[in-house]
Amino acid sequence: MDVKKEAIKKHSEWRGKIEVVSTVPLANRQDLSLAYTPGVAEPCLEIEKNKDLVYEYTRKWNLVAVVTDGTAVLGLGDIGPEAGMPVMEGKCVLFKHFANVDAFPILIGTKDTDKIVETIKLIAPTFGGINLEDIGAPRCFEIEERLKNELDIPVFHDDQHGTAIVVIAGVINALRLVKKDVKDVTVVVNGAGAAGTAIVNMLINLGVKDILLCDRQGILYPGAPFNDSHKEKMAKITNKNKKQGLLKDAMKDADIFIGVSAANTVTEDMVREMNSNAIVFAMANPVPEIMPDLAKKGGARIVGTGRSDFPNQVNNVLAFPGIFRGALDVRAKEINEEMKLAAAHAIAELITEEELHEEYIIPDAFDLRVADRIAKAVAQAAKDTGVSRI
Amino acid sequence: MDVKKEAIKKHSEWRGKIEVVSTVPLANRQDLSLAYTPGVAEPCLEIEKNKDLVYEYTRKWNLVAVVTDGTAVLGLGDIGPEAGMPVMEGKCVLFKHFANVDAFPILIGTKDTDKIVETIKLIAPTFGGINLEDIGAPRCFEIEERLKNELDIPVFHDDQHGTAIVVIAGVINALRLVKKDVKDVTVVVNGAGAAGTAIVNMLINLGVKDILLCDRQGILYPGAPFNDSHKEKMAKITNKNKKQGLLKDAMKDADIFIGVSAANTVTEDMVREMNSNAIVFAMANPVPEIMPDLAKKGGARIVGTGRSDFPNQVNNVLAFPGIFRGALDVRAKEINEEMKLAAAHAIAELITEEELHEEYIIPDAFDLRVADRIAKAVAQAAKDTGVSRI
Repeated sequence: MDVKKEAIKKHSEWRGKIEVVSTVPLANRQDLSLAYTPGVAEPCLEIEKNKDLVYEYTRKWNLVAVVTDGTAVLGLGDIGPEAGMPVMEGKCVLFKHFANVDAFPILIGTKDTDKIVETIKLIAPTFGGINLEDIGAPRCFEIEERLKNELDIPVFHDDQHGTAIVVIAGVINALRLVKKDVKDVTVVVNGAGAAGTAIVNMLINLGVKDILLCDRQGILYPGAPFNDSHKEKMAKITNKNKKQGLLKDAMKDADIFIGVSAANTVTEDMVREMNSNAIVFAMANPVPEIMPDLAKKGGARIVGTGRSDFPNQVNNVLAFPGIFRGALDVRAKEINEEMKLAAAHAIAELITEEELHEEYIIPDAFDLRVADRIAKAVAQAAKDTGVSRI
Repeated sequence: MDVKKEAIKKHSEWRGKIEVVSTVPLANRQDLSLAYTPGVAEPCLEIEKNKDLVYEYTRKWNLVAVVTDGTAVLGLGDIGPEAGMPVMEGKCVLFKHFANVDAFPILIGTKDTDKIVETIKLIAPTFGGINLEDIGAPRCFEIEERLKNELDIPVFHDDQHGTAIVVIAGVINALRLVKKDVKDVTVVVNGAGAAGTAIVNMLINLGVKDILLCDRQGILYPGAPFNDSHKEKMAKITNKNKKQGLLKDAMKDADIFIGVSAANTVTEDMVREMNSNAIVFAMANPVPEIMPDLAKKGGARIVGTGRSDFPNQVNNVLAFPGIFRGALDVRAKEINEEMKLAAAHAIAELITEEELHEEYIIPDAFDLRVADRIAKAVAQAAKDTGVSRI
């Protein structure tokens, strides 16, 4: 099958991958008088008296906006909001399929950070949660941060946290397999954009003490001339030994490599310089930083990629449906670090001690148990941290 | 059945009247590779090259936003956007049921006109059309006007035009029945808000020469001390004889009374003063300006109300689904006066000469033929006026 041709053919047949349907009967005047006027006035008046009842009498409890400005769609870059629509609809399909979340695409026709924040805030009364999607870095950080502060519903930038959660699940299981302690390992993260930043933050929360974050100019260190404010901040919370150098210098003696960067940035020799039982996540798409066979030749024991045709696929469809399911189920005010970490552990723990091996440290993207397990763990973490409202 | 109690019970069982579903298969990796990555990149790239293809490869062609700020919900007033949600969802249900339009509620958390306009403009790339709903007058006029000028998709304030279109259909058929010419009749419209204004505009477009628009202070006339800018404007396009006085003075010798005002504002005696073969549309809800039996006693030959338990119900569900269906089908850039008038005629013409009688001048709200007839007429009118893009 020629995927490109077939995808165009299918999209032109489908003319949209989502539909908004009615869930109520409408066969006669009595049905109409209950679903619409005059009966509908009653739930309206009840909600006016107690705004929380909007979660009881309407679909808000299960509605998630999948919002983009179209500036970082897949690996295609700034292609505009309309051109992002097929991805947003695809995301909505996945939300429904894996976690019965009613997700709806919202394309925003501006790249202005203030306007994006304002627009999302103003339409937020409609939704139980906001999933930010394919918004370019570093703008995505500020947009998420401000919305998290100003809204009382979960806001989640999937390109950051979705990927990070699945990678962390992979790290947890890889370490289980090679029997290393998270506190003792050195992790190299290549790529300081949306995903790389979120991965670093989660690694720190997981308990990793030694992280080297690299970008095209090499290892980030405080005060580096090429640092913008975001990189300076990241440099300060990583690189405890103030190391300078290139990616290959970072990888020397490292235990784990995590790439969210570009094709072919890692060589077999660079892997060879890593510590024994090396773990490599090479997630550049469609061509990884290093192909799995080459990484193995270089001595890597465990290799994960972003691709479905190799073992250990880091696919964020494993994370976002269950995370929102859990957050919506307890009407969480936010998705905090504890909830994300709970999600990563839930993904990891799905694989039993007996099942765990080099080619199975991450569950299959079609494993329908995952979303449910995550949802329960996330809901519990929300309760434990006091951000649930149920 | 106690409608109020039953409506609350049903709404709390339903927990929302709409759902966002997937229309594509997702059984295996191949399905995923077509609906989502990597295949989805192809329609994205095609749309980037030619933005119009968003209508071919995504659901935009059939998506309508049902937008409110919650300031004029039903007859309940300014109850806030969340409290408007049951009505917005109900509207979406009707859109789907009658015309297969995928409508989605958007609650806007501000009453600031500029912000509402800006927000709708910024999310407009998502939609094929915008249905404004339950936004208070006079703000609704400016919001609609500005959006119509600044967007290239249909914008339609249903509380104005939906009601007006159905009333005009009723006027057309009532005049057919009493054999009066539209050019010769005097029409009194009571209520200068959203619906009243739109009704006056459509009456003018229909060819009515003599219109008296009244509000609580009586007949609007140019220069009246109680006129705001909106009322001054309306006074100038009505009241050709510069008449002053109260509603009862306006109604003397009038052929048609159209009320979109308040309960019991019209007496039997006021109807008695009207011309022979008087036509009365008393649409205040739930209690009309005058009850049908009283209007008949006063000499009215034809009476319509907003209620389903009397004949000739003016229910805007007759209009908006078919209007948007027609506009979406030809990818109209706007819904113009010709399209609205075409819709009114389509509704009126559904009733044949043989069927037409005093208690059947407006089709039943559940007549499923209506939306289809309107859609065809509206699509044709869009083509004829050069606003279609197909």
